[in-house]
Amino acid sequence: MNDNNFDRQMMLRCLELASRAKGKTSPNPMVGSVIVVDGKIVGEGFHPAAGKPHAEVFALQSARDLAKGATVYVSLEPCNHYGRTPPCTEALIAAGVAKVIVGMVDPNPRVSGKGIARLRKAGIEVVVGVEAEACQKLNEAFIHRVKYKMPFGILKYAMTLDGKIAATTGDSAWVTGKASRHWVHQLRSHSDGIIVGGNTVRQDNPNLTTHGVSDNNPLRIVMSRSLDLPGDRNLWDTAIAPTLVFTQTNNNLETKQILLDRGVEIIELDSLTPQTAMTHLYDRGLSTVLWECGGILAANAIRDRCVQKLYTFIAPKIIGGNIGFSAIADFGLTKMSDALELERINLQQIDRDFLIESYLSL
Amino acid sequence: MNDNNFDRQMMLRCLELASRAKGKTSPNPMVGSVIVVDGKIVGEGFHPAAGKPHAEVFALQSARDLAKGATVYVSLEPCNHYGRTPPCTEALIAAGVAKVIVGMVDPNPRVSGKGIARLRKAGIEVVVGVEAEACQKLNEAFIHRVKYKMPFGILKYAMTLDGKIAATTGDSAWVTGKASRHWVHQLRSHSDGIIVGGNTVRQDNPNLTTHGVSDNNPLRIVMSRSLDLPGDRNLWDTAIAPTLVFTQTNNNLETKQILLDRGVEIIELDSLTPQTAMTHLYDRGLSTVLWECGGILAANAIRDRCVQKLYTFIAPKIIGGNIGFSAIADFGLTKMSDALELERINLQQIDRDFLIESYLSL
Repeated sequence: MNDNNFDRQMMLRCLELASRAKGKTSPNPMVGSVIVVDGKIVGEGFHPAAGKPHAEVFALQSARDLAKGATVYVSLEPCNHYGRTPPCTEALIAAGVAKVIVGMVDPNPRVSGKGIARLRKAGIEVVVGVEAEACQKLNEAFIHRVKYKMPFGILKYAMTLDGKIAATTGDSAWVTGKASRHWVHQLRSHSDGIIVGGNTVRQDNPNLTTHGVSDNNPLRIVMSRSLDLPGDRNLWDTAIAPTLVFTQTNNNLETKQILLDRGVEIIELDSLTPQTAMTHLYDRGLSTVLWECGGILAANAIRDRCVQKLYTFIAPKIIGGNIGFSAIADFGLTKMSDALELERINLQQIDRDFLIESYLSL
Repeated sequence: MNDNNFDRQMMLRCLELASRAKGKTSPNPMVGSVIVVDGKIVGEGFHPAAGKPHAEVFALQSARDLAKGATVYVSLEPCNHYGRTPPCTEALIAAGVAKVIVGMVDPNPRVSGKGIARLRKAGIEVVVGVEAEACQKLNEAFIHRVKYKMPFGILKYAMTLDGKIAATTGDSAWVTGKASRHWVHQLRSHSDGIIVGGNTVRQDNPNLTTHGVSDNNPLRIVMSRSLDLPGDRNLWDTAIAPTLVFTQTNNNLETKQILLDRGVEIIELDSLTPQTAMTHLYDRGLSTVLWECGGILAANAIRDRCVQKLYTFIAPKIIGGNIGFSAIADFGLTKMSDALELERINLQQIDRDFLIESYLSL
C-alpha cells in the first residue's frame, strides 16, 4: 500500500470515529482523529457532543507521549480559536506532532485556513484534502448551516411504484417494508429535528421517535398556524422526546394550556412559514432537520428553499388512485420542462424497496 | 471451458439470433438455432416471421451436409406437427444429427414434450433446459398467449421522483430524457400493438410509431366507446402504420366514415372493456400489447388482468401538484396493505432516468 492509500484509509477511519456522534454534535460538526507512528495507530478520538473536547484532544490523550513526532489525521481543519474549549492547534503544537493530515478546511470563512496556517507557522507539515469529498458529505448539514445560516433540510417520503403515498382513503400503513422503516428510525436518530404539519398530527398521530434504534431522539416539531390540535396526541408525551410547536400569535388559549401542561414548548411567530421556522431552528443550533410532513407543507418547504436533500422510498407495489395524496403538492410549476432537476442521485435497495437519495441545486 | 459453459454460450447465441425477429413472429415464438461440429459453429438460423420456415430449417440449410452427426442447439423444443411448415423433428432426423440441445419445452400442453420424444425415438440424444430461464423470458409473451389465451400486456409510464406523470396543467413534455424515449421506441418495435384511450388521442395527439428505430411499426389501437374523436389526429395517417379503433355499436356515423376513409379499421364490440379488446387482439394473433394509455384506462386494464408487466420510468426531477394526473387511477383498493405486490423487479439506469421492470402476479 502506498502512502496515499494509507492516508485515505486513515482518513476513512477518522470519519468512522466521527460518525459515532451522529445526531449529537450540532451546532458543531462531527470530527474524528487518528494518531499514527510508523504506520500504526497509537491514538484515536472523536468529538462526542457540543461543549465536549474536540476530536484531536481525545486522540492526543489516548496517544500520550507517543504523539511526539507522530502524524495526526483529522477529518476537519483543527480550530485555532478559543470557544468553549481551547484551540486544538495549540494542543497539537504542544504535543510536538510532526505532521497533520487534514480532510477538509473549515467551511466558516472567518476560520477557514487559519488553523492550517498556525500549524505550518509552528513548523508542522500539513497536508490538506485527503478524502475531502467523504469528509464534506459527512458534514454536509454543518457546512450548509455555516454557509447559508440555515439548517440543512431533508425531505423524506415513501411512495408506491405508481407514485402514491396513500390509498384513496388516506390509508398509508405501510408503503414500505420493515427494513426501510428501520432505516428511517436511524435517519431520525442522526437528525436534530423532525417537522410535521398540523394535518399529520391530527390524522396520523405519529410518534416521530427513533423506536429504540438510539437513545438520541431528535426534537419533534409541529407547524400549526391555527393550533387546532387534539389534546391526546402521542407527540404531547414529552417524557419520550421533546416537542416544539410553532404557531402564530392566536387565541387558542385552551389548546395552548393543554400543551404547555404536557411539557410541550410553544413558539409563536408573527408569520409562520417554513422559512421563519427554519430560521428559528438555526438560532437554536439545529443542523439537520427532517421534513416528514404531508405534500402541502413539503411543497411550501421546497418553495422556501428549506429542503436541500430528498430521500425517496419506492415500494414495489401499486395501489391506484386519483385523489390528492401527493408526496409534494403544487408549488407553482406549470410546465414539465420547468421541473426541478435533482443532482448527485444515489440509489440503494433496502430489502424489497428502493431508496433514492438526491439533492436539489441551490 | 467445460461442456456446460459451452452449451450455455451456444444457447445464448440461439437467443441472440432469435431476438433479431423481435416484434415480427407473432403469433409464433422467437426461436434461434445453432449447429456445432467439434466445438465450431457450422450453421445458424432463426425464425424470421410467422409463415416462414422455422429456425432449425435455416440452420440445417446453412450447415448443409456438415449437419450429419452434429449437435443442434435450439431455444425452443422442435415442432412435431404439420402447420404452415413441415415438422422440424423430421428435418433434424433426415439430416442425421447426433444430438439436440433444447432451451425449453413447448409451453403448449398439446405439443409439450412430443417433439423431444420423437427425436429420442429416432435415436437422437436430447438435452433439455439449458438457459431455460433466459429462453422463457425472451418468449414470455408467447408463453402467456399459449397458457392464458390472451395477449401479454405491458403497461409503460413515466413519472417524476414525486410520482407525477404531468404538471398541474397536464403538460407532460417530457418527463424522461431523450435516451429513455428512444428506449420506448425500441420497445414499441418489439410489440405487436399499442393501446391508448380516447382521451390520449384527443389531448396528446400521439404518433405511437417507432420513430425510425425500426421499420416494424406495431398496430396502433384506440379504445373509444363514444367514438367522439377529432378528424385530424396523427393516428389516422395509416400510411405510416396501421390503426385500429375499438368502439361500441353506436350512432357516431360521421366520425366513423371519416376514419374509414383514412384507412382506419373500426371494430364494434357489444361491450368495450380491456378484456373484450384483448380477447379480440388474441384472436388476431397478437402476443405483446403495450398499454401507453392514461391512468383511468391503465387502472381498468389492471383490474381486468390485462397487464402482466410494468415498465416504470422515474425521472430525477420534481414538479409538484395535487390534481389527478396519475399513472394508475383508482381500481378499487382502499387499504395500503391490499396493494398489489410486484415481482421479479429489475432496475436499470438509462442516462439520468431509472427504469424499473416488474411483474404483476397472476
